[in-house]
Amino acid sequence: MAPVVTLLTDYGYSDEFAGVLHGVIARGCPEARVIDITHGIARHDVSAAAIVLRNALPQMPAGVHVVVVDPGVGGERRAIALKTAEEDRILLGPDNGVLELAAARFGGAVEAFDVSRSPWRLEPVSATFHGRDLFAPIAARLAAGAKLGEAGDPIEPASIQGLGLPEPVFGEGEVVAHALHADRFGNVLLNVTHEQLAGSGLQLGKPVELRIGARRVQAHVASTFTDVEPGAAIVYEDASRSLAVAINRGHAARELGIRMGTEIRIVRS
Amino acid sequence: MAPVVTLLTDYGYSDEFAGVLHGVIARGCPEARVIDITHGIARHDVSAAAIVLRNALPQMPAGVHVVVVDPGVGGERRAIALKTAEEDRILLGPDNGVLELAAARFGGAVEAFDVSRSPWRLEPVSATFHGRDLFAPIAARLAAGAKLGEAGDPIEPASIQGLGLPEPVFGEGEVVAHALHADRFGNVLLNVTHEQLAGSGLQLGKPVELRIGARRVQAHVASTFTDVEPGAAIVYEDASRSLAVAINRGHAARELGIRMGTEIRIVRS
Amino acid sequence: MAPVVTLLTDYGYSDEFAGVLHGVIARGCPEARVIDITHGIARHDVSAAAIVLRNALPQMPAGVHVVVVDPGVGGERRAIALKTAEEDRILLGPDNGVLELAAARFGGAVEAFDVSRSPWRLEPVSATFHGRDLFAPIAARLAAGAKLGEAGDPIEPASIQGLGLPEPVFGEGEVVAHALHADRFGNVLLNVTHEQLAGSGLQLGKPVELRIGARRVQAHVASTFTDVEPGAAIVYEDASRSLAVAINRGHAARELGIRMGTEIRIVRS
Repeated sequence: MAPVVTLLTDYGYSDEFAGVLHGVIARGCPEARVIDITHGIARHDVSAAAIVLRNALPQMPAGVHVVVVDPGVGGERRAIALKTAEEDRILLGPDNGVLELAAARFGGAVEAFDVSRSPWRLEPVSATFHGRDLFAPIAARLAAGAKLGEAGDPIEPASIQGLGLPEPVFGEGEVVAHALHADRFGNVLLNVTHEQLAGSGLQLGKPVELRIGARRVQAHVASTFTDVEPGAAIVYEDASRSLAVAINRGHAARELGIRMGTEIRIVRS
Repeated sequence: MAPVVTLLTDYGYSDEFAGVLHGVIARGCPEARVIDITHGIARHDVSAAAIVLRNALPQMPAGVHVVVVDPGVGGERRAIALKTAEEDRILLGPDNGVLELAAARFGGAVEAFDVSRSPWRLEPVSATFHGRDLFAPIAARLAAGAKLGEAGDPIEPASIQGLGLPEPVFGEGEVVAHALHADRFGNVLLNVTHEQLAGSGLQLGKPVELRIGARRVQAHVASTFTDVEPGAAIVYEDASRSLAVAINRGHAARELGIRMGTEIRIVRS
Repeated sequence: MAPVVTLLTDYGYSDEFAGVLHGVIARGCPEARVIDITHGIARHDVSAAAIVLRNALPQMPAGVHVVVVDPGVGGERRAIALKTAEEDRILLGPDNGVLELAAARFGGAVEAFDVSRSPWRLEPVSATFHGRDLFAPIAARLAAGAKLGEAGDPIEPASIQGLGLPEPVFGEGEVVAHALHADRFGNVLLNVTHEQLAGSGLQLGKPVELRIGARRVQAHVASTFTDVEPGAAIVYEDASRSLAVAINRGHAARELGIRMGTEIRIVRS
């Protein structure tokens, strides 16, 4: 089977940046199969990229998984590569927390390297396009079979920067959650897993009240959008097994005024 | 030649959804070549997806052709797979009319299956991401050579849901058409084929009047945009051999206030 | 190594157009590897496409490089194919200047052909979708090993249309530049290379004033965004080794009112 490289960036689709990553990898490892997770992460949205990578990675063949969402490019942040405990996946990106959730899903990092001055980078390294000059060439080398240990200098996995996401708080018949990310459809992912919800006394089919700032919204704990009328709100287990808020055929983030980090209280009514 | 899977969705490009389909297929059938027709269909626009699939399919190598534009996901709509009379193409998607036009272009469905409970789906099937849990795994199995008859339960091709598109009406020197779809450039596809126009008395190079609600627009029946001045309207045979309305270097849908389903009378002037 | 075809268009991502190019090439040359540079060029923006191709091409494996940004499609403009002096790259597109900068980067065109009536086009050629009917089939044939000389009729390389970009003017401690292109992040590429700047007396780390119409903006000549505070402007060498203007974590094009062709005076302060 051909080696796999996956790409996840905030480069967007209107410039050549994502295409250039493909070019560099095709030159460095012609046999690699390159899969775009997405290049549509909102600019500099490290948390969104971390969540998207966590959600997508289990469906990707194991390989080299590159993330370039990198507001500190050209500054002093490290570039890192790590190997996961399970499945020997290699994660590659800036040391800004973006790899944290995906690494955790595969048992955490068992090895990590600072690749900022990797011998495989393309010289001269530009100050602004490390995707092209650093991350893609390293990914190509690793896909072609080079050893991870030669990509850079070993570092302590524990020294890798975290994301610092908020934690949910559970009360009797109440959960204090935070919005982590909204998808294209406006469905809002919360920092609560399906398992955590089970203990909170909130049950499928039951009405709840969402408290978002001064706003009060009636909603149902439901399985899917079509369980409620168009325009009605639901709290549901999304496809990543996390709790999410949606409006059937609507755009919950916009209609309910939810942004990244917004506190959402879910209260049994 | 590698087996081909084509993808057409309304997942957009800002989330991981389309990338995840690639991942699932790469895991299930590593040798498959996956071609993205587009993931940019407007959310839930089943008609647009049906037209886009019809227009794109003749240029695609025969293979497994997946469509996920699915406002009823998680509800009671069936998921279906069908085989076309010509070229043995396999079309896979929700049973909401989205496959109708493409199937018709290849002689209609000769076999059809309800794959809602396919043995190949990924368990547990989420309520909201059937692309990942149902359609992509089935596509991968079929691309890998599994038999269509094992994908689900046989159904009558005649039981497949239709789109219910409006029909044009032809009078002397007049066509009553409807807008089916606007592309990125604002060019508006009508429900009239080039062959149908031939019988209406409207001829290349001749002036016509477009009547759109209360609006009256002078236009020419033309071959291409540059046959008229910038800003002028044309009625022309588009690349799918259907009639379309455009404004040279303009955006006809926006400038003429045309939406999906808008009635457009084309009258000889 | 598989033959490579790269694609660069203004087709966008909401229609089937880019996907159809992939389909046509997969049918004509199943072994080709197709790399999308981008399909997100602003509609009809020939200059932007020319710059994007110039920047991306050095990172692409040598192959057949197709550009379809073609406001004159269906009119009298020629379709051309050329071979570059260095690396034997084949560039294919409309004769509207879009290939000029990329050809120059590889030593210019040593052979050129008018392929408007290529024997390899798909008949009937539509008036509006030459990507599908002309450029993609020619690219597929060439990728499959056909001879460039059989794609069309030889023409003089000197007869190829140029872009006519403005030239910068250098004074003592001052450069009169023009904006060529803004990327997704609002970073503005200028018509000045890093080498040209060196002779102007403007130095890294020094303050400059940007004069944009009546606007006066303090900026620094810097290496990267993080050399200045968020919201501050820099003039820097971008990843293509050209001069560019950016605002750290901002959108320079929008915030400074810069469009394609805007004159920007960079004055030592």
